[in-house]
Amino acid sequence: MKIGVIGYGYWGPNVVRNFYNAANATVAYVADLSPKSLQRVRQTYPTMPVTTNPAEVFADPGIDAVAIVTPITYHFPLAKQALESGKHVFVEKPFTATTAQAEELIELAERKNLLIMVDHTFLFNGAVRKIHELISSGTLGNLYYYDSTRVNLGLFQHDANVVWDLAPHDLSIIDYLIEDVPEAIVATGEKHVNGTEDMAFITIYFPNKVIAHLNLNWLSPVKVRTTLIGGEKKMLVWNDLEADEKVKVYDKGIERSNGSSGYDLRVSYRTGDLWVPRIEQVEALTREAQYFVSCVLSGETPFNDGRAGLRVVRMLEAIDRSIAHKGEMVYCGSGMSKPVPSQAAAQMRSASA
Amino acid sequence: MKIGVIGYGYWGPNVVRNFYNAANATVAYVADLSPKSLQRVRQTYPTMPVTTNPAEVFADPGIDAVAIVTPITYHFPLAKQALESGKHVFVEKPFTATTAQAEELIELAERKNLLIMVDHTFLFNGAVRKIHELISSGTLGNLYYYDSTRVNLGLFQHDANVVWDLAPHDLSIIDYLIEDVPEAIVATGEKHVNGTEDMAFITIYFPNKVIAHLNLNWLSPVKVRTTLIGGEKKMLVWNDLEADEKVKVYDKGIERSNGSSGYDLRVSYRTGDLWVPRIEQVEALTREAQYFVSCVLSGETPFNDGRAGLRVVRMLEAIDRSIAHKGEMVYCGSGMSKPVPSQAAAQMRSASA
Amino acid sequence: MKIGVIGYGYWGPNVVRNFYNAANATVAYVADLSPKSLQRVRQTYPTMPVTTNPAEVFADPGIDAVAIVTPITYHFPLAKQALESGKHVFVEKPFTATTAQAEELIELAERKNLLIMVDHTFLFNGAVRKIHELISSGTLGNLYYYDSTRVNLGLFQHDANVVWDLAPHDLSIIDYLIEDVPEAIVATGEKHVNGTEDMAFITIYFPNKVIAHLNLNWLSPVKVRTTLIGGEKKMLVWNDLEADEKVKVYDKGIERSNGSSGYDLRVSYRTGDLWVPRIEQVEALTREAQYFVSCVLSGETPFNDGRAGLRVVRMLEAIDRSIAHKGEMVYCGSGMSKPVPSQAAAQMRSASA
Amino acid sequence: MKIGVIGYGYWGPNVVRNFYNAANATVAYVADLSPKSLQRVRQTYPTMPVTTNPAEVFADPGIDAVAIVTPITYHFPLAKQALESGKHVFVEKPFTATTAQAEELIELAERKNLLIMVDHTFLFNGAVRKIHELISSGTLGNLYYYDSTRVNLGLFQHDANVVWDLAPHDLSIIDYLIEDVPEAIVATGEKHVNGTEDMAFITIYFPNKVIAHLNLNWLSPVKVRTTLIGGEKKMLVWNDLEADEKVKVYDKGIERSNGSSGYDLRVSYRTGDLWVPRIEQVEALTREAQYFVSCVLSGETPFNDGRAGLRVVRMLEAIDRSIAHKGEMVYCGSGMSKPVPSQAAAQMRSASA
Repeated sequence: MKIGVIGYGYWGPNVVRNFYNAANATVAYVADLSPKSLQRVRQTYPTMPVTTNPAEVFADPGIDAVAIVTPITYHFPLAKQALESGKHVFVEKPFTATTAQAEELIELAERKNLLIMVDHTFLFNGAVRKIHELISSGTLGNLYYYDSTRVNLGLFQHDANVVWDLAPHDLSIIDYLIEDVPEAIVATGEKHVNGTEDMAFITIYFPNKVIAHLNLNWLSPVKVRTTLIGGEKKMLVWNDLEADEKVKVYDKGIERSNGSSGYDLRVSYRTGDLWVPRIEQVEALTREAQYFVSCVLSGETPFNDGRAGLRVVRMLEAIDRSIAHKGEMVYCGSGMSKPVPSQAAAQMRSASA
Repeated sequence: MKIGVIGYGYWGPNVVRNFYNAANATVAYVADLSPKSLQRVRQTYPTMPVTTNPAEVFADPGIDAVAIVTPITYHFPLAKQALESGKHVFVEKPFTATTAQAEELIELAERKNLLIMVDHTFLFNGAVRKIHELISSGTLGNLYYYDSTRVNLGLFQHDANVVWDLAPHDLSIIDYLIEDVPEAIVATGEKHVNGTEDMAFITIYFPNKVIAHLNLNWLSPVKVRTTLIGGEKKMLVWNDLEADEKVKVYDKGIERSNGSSGYDLRVSYRTGDLWVPRIEQVEALTREAQYFVSCVLSGETPFNDGRAGLRVVRMLEAIDRSIAHKGEMVYCGSGMSKPVPSQAAAQMRSASA
Repeated sequence: MKIGVIGYGYWGPNVVRNFYNAANATVAYVADLSPKSLQRVRQTYPTMPVTTNPAEVFADPGIDAVAIVTPITYHFPLAKQALESGKHVFVEKPFTATTAQAEELIELAERKNLLIMVDHTFLFNGAVRKIHELISSGTLGNLYYYDSTRVNLGLFQHDANVVWDLAPHDLSIIDYLIEDVPEAIVATGEKHVNGTEDMAFITIYFPNKVIAHLNLNWLSPVKVRTTLIGGEKKMLVWNDLEADEKVKVYDKGIERSNGSSGYDLRVSYRTGDLWVPRIEQVEALTREAQYFVSCVLSGETPFNDGRAGLRVVRMLEAIDRSIAHKGEMVYCGSGMSKPVPSQAAAQMRSASA
Repeated sequence: MKIGVIGYGYWGPNVVRNFYNAANATVAYVADLSPKSLQRVRQTYPTMPVTTNPAEVFADPGIDAVAIVTPITYHFPLAKQALESGKHVFVEKPFTATTAQAEELIELAERKNLLIMVDHTFLFNGAVRKIHELISSGTLGNLYYYDSTRVNLGLFQHDANVVWDLAPHDLSIIDYLIEDVPEAIVATGEKHVNGTEDMAFITIYFPNKVIAHLNLNWLSPVKVRTTLIGGEKKMLVWNDLEADEKVKVYDKGIERSNGSSGYDLRVSYRTGDLWVPRIEQVEALTREAQYFVSCVLSGETPFNDGRAGLRVVRMLEAIDRSIAHKGEMVYCGSGMSKPVPSQAAAQMRSASA
């Protein structure tokens, strides 16, 4: 299986390297608008065909699939051309700049019987997979909340605010971990520096009192990547910057006492051991690239398909709208739907194999 | 100067101890509904007059001031009786359960020429004072944001949700650090356990794009007390759980490049040294108790007076209203006003002396 | 049971408080050379008999036992008088200034059928008890090493170098955790400031290649209280400054591969989960004070008796001698002996009850 | 200037990459015994001449210098051949397996007017350079001590114990930071696993009460890379595992009070701000490779020359001897000598340029 990669900027080299080394696949073409980037390609892969014109990749009948690793604005036109040329598509997150674009691509892919995978890399991260296992096995009990802080001194993007830059990570993880679809979103933010949001605070309401919160900030002096996840039985802290102790599972919880009353009535809590499961150290993108190849070869629909990408874009749009109206609640349930759990479980199993 | 203290539960012993040891003052009466609490008083202060009836404290002509250290619901009736009995009042935060109550007490105190101080203890904390100094001296430059995370596995209160329990700390600090009054509040939250909010996410909009955010949570497996404060020139992290390095000042900031254009236009950032100023280790309440005594003796109006207490209660009410309407923006500017900066500065100077 | 306490400086108040509140016992007399210290006693315990003359405590026939909480130089004369007056003795660590003194006191106590307990408080610390349990249950496997770093910016003592100030903690813990008696000690150190060692590095050789190392330092800008303990099956880190995660047990270890040979022969290692057991939060001295009372009442010999104190003093003397001779190996096996394990186990069980 | 590199195992690829990209130099030949390693070379540098026979590199008249990146046992024979072939030598640390070998190579290089540089990479690390600056500028005041903990779960080496594996880092740093030469060494250790020391504790005595201590351990469940450095005026902590705050400078120190006397005489201490200087993020080996090239081209003697390598090997031998005799003090002053400070300073200046 031969893959063409379009875009060789910051993330592209990782995509090329991983597809290059994937079993049953190789990279057969790399395109980038910048000749300088192509020079970097040739330094590492001296025999690799390169081009500044993506159309040449689409025109090559030997190419089975295309990976699109460009700024957001190019995702839609490039993916559309790729699908029209009969290529499967692996596309950077966020999937598209609008839900309309996402829906058009999904429809096109289905019509042409082609596969779309959105690069929600974090779903292949060892910590996220371990957390998914802890939730789906019932270890945490019923979910209470997902609360993520994702802040750093960030490079301002020319085509994205802090939401489109940082939120797709958490949104795709939330979409993966929480079975239900969101009901409504409330988001606030501010533009301090150059007319685009550099801070955002996002609340996502789910059914059954499950609530998610994201704190995104490009103006933080320190880098933080910490998520608290609370369940009825256990709670956990995921600190992605920790080298060895990324996920800490606390045997802590709430206990409601019955029968007591009056002034002294209190909900008490319970404290037990702390457990830090070992996390697999495989590079997430390596696992994901291999999963893409196996989905294409087997015809299986990936769980991070175009619809998953659409669900994330839908939330991004809702967030933007809410921020623009200073926290106005935006409903996002309509049109959101997910595969039934049993299907998803089967898909995940195959991703793990 | 003789002080009567009403309430000897969790915080009362600290209030008694600090007024007992303050210069030019002593504690001359302690009241608590529970005889068991009064027994604890007598163990430590064998000659201290105690009573289960607060009215006896108000009736005692030798008492100059009363400290009210009870659950919130009792603040208003007790403070009202104290003022009507001609006593100055030191009252726990939050000042009252409603803005109407706060306004009534302020009016009453002014009419009777008595002083109200609200126990916003954190304003006397060494770290907060240092941060105030860094902001007011212009070291941080124009403020961008105040972002606080205040979470832990919390005891559920019988008369307060997580907002009334935890937010008064940050709200009083924000009121102290940010010169302007808030324009609007957007808050979300959830009630997982017993019908009262156990999590809340609060955004406060100030003029000039200054934004504050509070993350409050009673269901966190870990205790966090971390605040990021960003300014145009410098940024800082205040971690109140650090033993020695509570305030870290980062010489980091944003630099806008002029003249460049097109695809590569980026706002860049600048990184310099990190500086951890030494923080005075004086107990905050010790300093505050002494300030109360000196305000009463000199007739000076404290900067944490009834009006400061009212401003905090006004924000608490706005937060509750916003949460109840799932993030509806609540305007809170009207009726909010603060002493002009020069006055406040003079007051702070006197608090420092 | 009535206890007299001699010495009310830094640690004395804790000893008084804990014996005062112990079941079946109370503090009936407090002595201190400084009238100012006695004033502090009376503030907290208004009815407590106090004296500047320890002889009065010894002369009081109502006193059953004496706690000696003074600088080291006074331990021997005061303990001797106490025993001669027929009182049981609870004495601060280190037990005495010399092994000769320790031996004389032990002999005297045995002759008069009285009990000596040395205040090795750390043996009653929840973390140390948990570690003891992990070792004695075989969870760690055969011990490899005990490596402690105990450094801070220390107050220089007038009658002790850094070894006599800080080492008794680790030496008593080592004596408790490691079944064997030490064979030899090598120690180095330096006197930078005032003619007494302010830094020391101590190696203790035990049978079966078990090795202990202590890094003691009064000139460290940061406070560290970290001990690594390595076993054949598992290893642990005890950080006494951590609020919640004091003992971390690593499922890590060495695996010797058989049969392979040549250039590539390597001992590999194994990595599994990390486990942080919950540690009981009881104050160590509370548990120890109660244990002293129960030993006196039952006639049981405590495991932290005079002989345990002597073993620690013997090591302290060996360390001093080795440092004075720049690391000369000092044998310390002769004369060292411990109760057989089964006895010790029984004692520990009773301490836990 | 053309460089041949011998050895392409773990560290070799870094050496090749850095010399390949150095100004005024390139890598013109790579040798390794393993054809598999040479295949890795060709993947990255498709046109690079490679060989399994180092003699071909020595025989190539176009090669000006040789970098030796092999296990220790090969350093001497390969460096000797290189020098005899008229090549300058860049050699991995530790320089040689014995002092006799080091002396022979130094003599040979001088006779042939060739340059030797030993790859003490840490001397080009931003943190170490900053520490050197803080010491040599007098900021720390007179040095008291250097205390390093360098522990981890280590791969057992076939030709080195933990001392030869880990100590060269600290020994070269000590040699760089401390102006004097060591007087004596006391070292202890233990062999738990396979007949070679896996733990070692090393004390190095310098003139003027300066003392260094190294804690090396291959059997630690956690990785630690922390060094405390104490001076009369200031103290610092260097934590090489910290991403951003590697060097913390504490304005803490000792103050001797004059005139007071008796029981209360105490050496007190002083606490001020903490300062975390920004550390340059340049890769150490990049800077070192460039320094090698510039020394060869200018004929300047590098400060990490063969004599610096010899001083480290001399200490390694002394440590082994002391451990073998359970802490016997080994004198190492004789034969140790260093360039006079002014020379060293000039050299360092040129390294910085």
